[in-house]
Amino acid sequence: MNNREDTSNGGKSEKNDASGGKYEDNNLGKKCGWESGPEAAHHAHFLRAVLDLLVEKAVFQGTDRSSKVVEWVEPSELQQRLQLDLGDDGVTQGDLLRHLDQVVRYSVKTGHPYFINQLFSSLDVYGLVGQWVTDALNPSVYTYEVSPVFTLMEIKVLSAMADLVGYKEHDGLFCPGGSISNMYGMLLARYHHCPDVKKRGLHGLGHQLVVLTSADSHYSLLKSAMTLGLGADNLLPVDVDEAGRMDVGHLRQRIKSAREEGAVPFMVCATAGTTVLGAYDPLDAVAEVCGDESLWLHVDAAWGGGALLSSRHKHKLLGIHRADSVTWNPHKLLASPQQCSVFLTSHPGLLDACNSASANYLFQKDKFYDTSYDVGDKHLQCGRRVDVLKFWTMWKAKGTTGLEKHVERVFEMSQLFADKIRFREGFKLLLEPECTNVCFWYEPPSLRTKRAHPEYNKLLNAVAPKIKERMVKTGSMMITYQPLRGQPNFFRLVLQNSQVNEHDINYFIAQIEHLGRDL
Amino acid sequence: MNNREDTSNGGKSEKNDASGGKYEDNNLGKKCGWESGPEAAHHAHFLRAVLDLLVEKAVFQGTDRSSKVVEWVEPSELQQRLQLDLGDDGVTQGDLLRHLDQVVRYSVKTGHPYFINQLFSSLDVYGLVGQWVTDALNPSVYTYEVSPVFTLMEIKVLSAMADLVGYKEHDGLFCPGGSISNMYGMLLARYHHCPDVKKRGLHGLGHQLVVLTSADSHYSLLKSAMTLGLGADNLLPVDVDEAGRMDVGHLRQRIKSAREEGAVPFMVCATAGTTVLGAYDPLDAVAEVCGDESLWLHVDAAWGGGALLSSRHKHKLLGIHRADSVTWNPHKLLASPQQCSVFLTSHPGLLDACNSASANYLFQKDKFYDTSYDVGDKHLQCGRRVDVLKFWTMWKAKGTTGLEKHVERVFEMSQLFADKIRFREGFKLLLEPECTNVCFWYEPPSLRTKRAHPEYNKLLNAVAPKIKERMVKTGSMMITYQPLRGQPNFFRLVLQNSQVNEHDINYFIAQIEHLGRDL
Repeated sequence: MNNREDTSNGGKSEKNDASGGKYEDNNLGKKCGWESGPEAAHHAHFLRAVLDLLVEKAVFQGTDRSSKVVEWVEPSELQQRLQLDLGDDGVTQGDLLRHLDQVVRYSVKTGHPYFINQLFSSLDVYGLVGQWVTDALNPSVYTYEVSPVFTLMEIKVLSAMADLVGYKEHDGLFCPGGSISNMYGMLLARYHHCPDVKKRGLHGLGHQLVVLTSADSHYSLLKSAMTLGLGADNLLPVDVDEAGRMDVGHLRQRIKSAREEGAVPFMVCATAGTTVLGAYDPLDAVAEVCGDESLWLHVDAAWGGGALLSSRHKHKLLGIHRADSVTWNPHKLLASPQQCSVFLTSHPGLLDACNSASANYLFQKDKFYDTSYDVGDKHLQCGRRVDVLKFWTMWKAKGTTGLEKHVERVFEMSQLFADKIRFREGFKLLLEPECTNVCFWYEPPSLRTKRAHPEYNKLLNAVAPKIKERMVKTGSMMITYQPLRGQPNFFRLVLQNSQVNEHDINYFIAQIEHLGRDL
Repeated sequence: MNNREDTSNGGKSEKNDASGGKYEDNNLGKKCGWESGPEAAHHAHFLRAVLDLLVEKAVFQGTDRSSKVVEWVEPSELQQRLQLDLGDDGVTQGDLLRHLDQVVRYSVKTGHPYFINQLFSSLDVYGLVGQWVTDALNPSVYTYEVSPVFTLMEIKVLSAMADLVGYKEHDGLFCPGGSISNMYGMLLARYHHCPDVKKRGLHGLGHQLVVLTSADSHYSLLKSAMTLGLGADNLLPVDVDEAGRMDVGHLRQRIKSAREEGAVPFMVCATAGTTVLGAYDPLDAVAEVCGDESLWLHVDAAWGGGALLSSRHKHKLLGIHRADSVTWNPHKLLASPQQCSVFLTSHPGLLDACNSASANYLFQKDKFYDTSYDVGDKHLQCGRRVDVLKFWTMWKAKGTTGLEKHVERVFEMSQLFADKIRFREGFKLLLEPECTNVCFWYEPPSLRTKRAHPEYNKLLNAVAPKIKERMVKTGSMMITYQPLRGQPNFFRLVLQNSQVNEHDINYFIAQIEHLGRDL
């Protein structure tokens, strides 16, 4: 290990440390080569001290219901406490351990069962182990030469996921998140429609390209349209029904009217599990339209794709095998650690045709092995962190059956939450949940008599932010809220953590009532 | 931790394991909740068994000079050995440990001092610890609410790096690698030139946008031009001198001729440390041209930016403070773990203006804290893995002085290598090194009498691939080779590992002579 030029332990000596005194700073880290005995032992000691801290405070305490989800501190105050400054001189390993203890202390415990704030959560032991192994190997995956194991592992996992999608043939890649994965979808669709753009660009194309997507689709579609040079105006929103699903009639209309205006639609993006409401667009019907109109169908299943693992819920994605491309993030519903995002397409070879630049310093064709295993040129990234191992480790440990049980459990618990609040005084469901999103208002007692008040919506709008503030400040739980289409702020419970049980569901309800009762 | 639906240990029992029998599978993982005693203990036991494996085999053995850099196996054979298949049923923790042992065994040891194959290497104890802490916390950084510590830490590190660049004011972000960082540069330059493209796209812009970059710049510029809809043809290559540096006279000419042809240049990309030769473009002179011509200057210092830490070498980047934007990867010359890539700009607010989509489910403006700390909307990613902690941990531990020593050490060792081969029989330097890249041919004895042979270049071209094959198959070291502008294949030694010493340098030379002597 590389610490020859390490200047830590600059003459300072420490007796106690954050891990409870087990670690003693013995001033050996000043010039440490990893081969030699005492320095190596010193570093090994430090590694183990950090691991003790992590296992105790991040892994166990961080997921313990009796611990806080977050220890809230205002930005300016936190800046003081963390001592983030970077100086000329290094700090001792003992000091560093204390700093890392603070990092753990003030970080949000996203593995905690009461963290139901985002589309990721949980702390899975196999996922964590997969991450730790990845880090110890520090690989980059672009050629078989430098990443033999992970090249083959990516092929295996992509293939297993493509099978679940129902693809007869496929290609795919791991992306740094669902937004980039959706961008790959739009990029590939554009290349498929007009391959010449790769060489000549959009200038002089002669027609305005447009993309259709539901009004509730993820904002990454908008960012993709901006980035790829299509322009935000040319992402045409399609209406949704009261459940947040794409209105297929309106889709047909919108395609027609775009063509009448002289624009050229080339892609429809459907969503399987929208971000806020958790709606599944009717994929089969959308695929029908795309077939009729010769449009590329991309399905953003970043969030809801995990339902493909469940025989009870996969019908929600009926027709997904007809998509030209799919985004699917195992780090969401399947609770793999951040980040694990997959892009799949039913057009083998197209990713390479679209994205290749054939750099001959990396993808030499005179190598001694089969260079079809050098998969990097179909990516936009060059060096690329390995995201496959953590998910492979989880899948291998639990089996497909284990992943299915996980998915069914989180659906079941979110349904239970919906059932419990459906007729409960003060709670109001926005809609029946399709995915594990449960959207609802909480109406404090004082508002229940003001339903006819002209300011009612404004008053209700202020409730969720106030309750959220109290939650965060006490660290009791974290759940998000948002407005939608003029509706006042509502809460969105969202589950990916199969550790959440009925007791927790009751706790969530009681907390919200408790924190909102005097508003 | 989330393993409620875990189906590992499906009734199987194991006595021995890959970590040498210390771990015993006791069938407790079948239904493990993390709160309860025996199951938690079981998982803790598994975690520690994996960590023992990692510390022993990946960290220590993997960086030990007496161990192989890689245990080479052909793809089809490796597929057999790894048993990557994903079945319905899970495997026991004991089996999983054996699988992970194989993953470690067959992975390239990128932290090994004899891995000098790519622009990343080393295994830094502080970097590794930073990664492990990140994983245990599993954060995503877009809002202060969910990532208070890492939001502040990013601000601090970006600011410290901007100081080194010499920016008076700045903005910046962490990217998933240098390619995406360069794409941000082109995207921002385009927005600065014609902000309307964000809304309307490139269609109907009325003029063809072009970007100028040196012929030796990284292929990500080409991919960026393709992706952003500018087109590969509109990335105009500028000639380089014999050292691989941009020819500023030709740059001026190229801008002029592009304008004469009716195109509109808007950006120049200069490189500080080219991928193959390690050349530093003359930034001050290029900045002068950009000033005169009102063009955005992006500097791709992904590779060579680390020299800014060294008072001896930072003159190579003279003028970088005049750049409008900079790519700089601490995971390259500064040997932070993969991935750690930074994008900086001297235009505060522009990233947000260019990339914001204002999603109101995430970036609510009615939060109770100062939402200027919610930095996610200036990124293209939504969920984003934390890449700052590993680098902050290294910097904090070593101090700026420690990083400087690291940089100077790798420059010194690469210079030493160049000195040793400069007049050595059979070796020929392509050019004097500017960065830690040392490019050279090895000419086997049999070729030394054939210099006038009409097939000489063809014969020499075959040498490096053959020596590389032998290296990989014996696992003795890894160094890359490539052709360039019609020149036959040559080796590129490249150092980021400050553990590499003079003994290693001699070893590299001896290995190449040994493996090539009969060719």
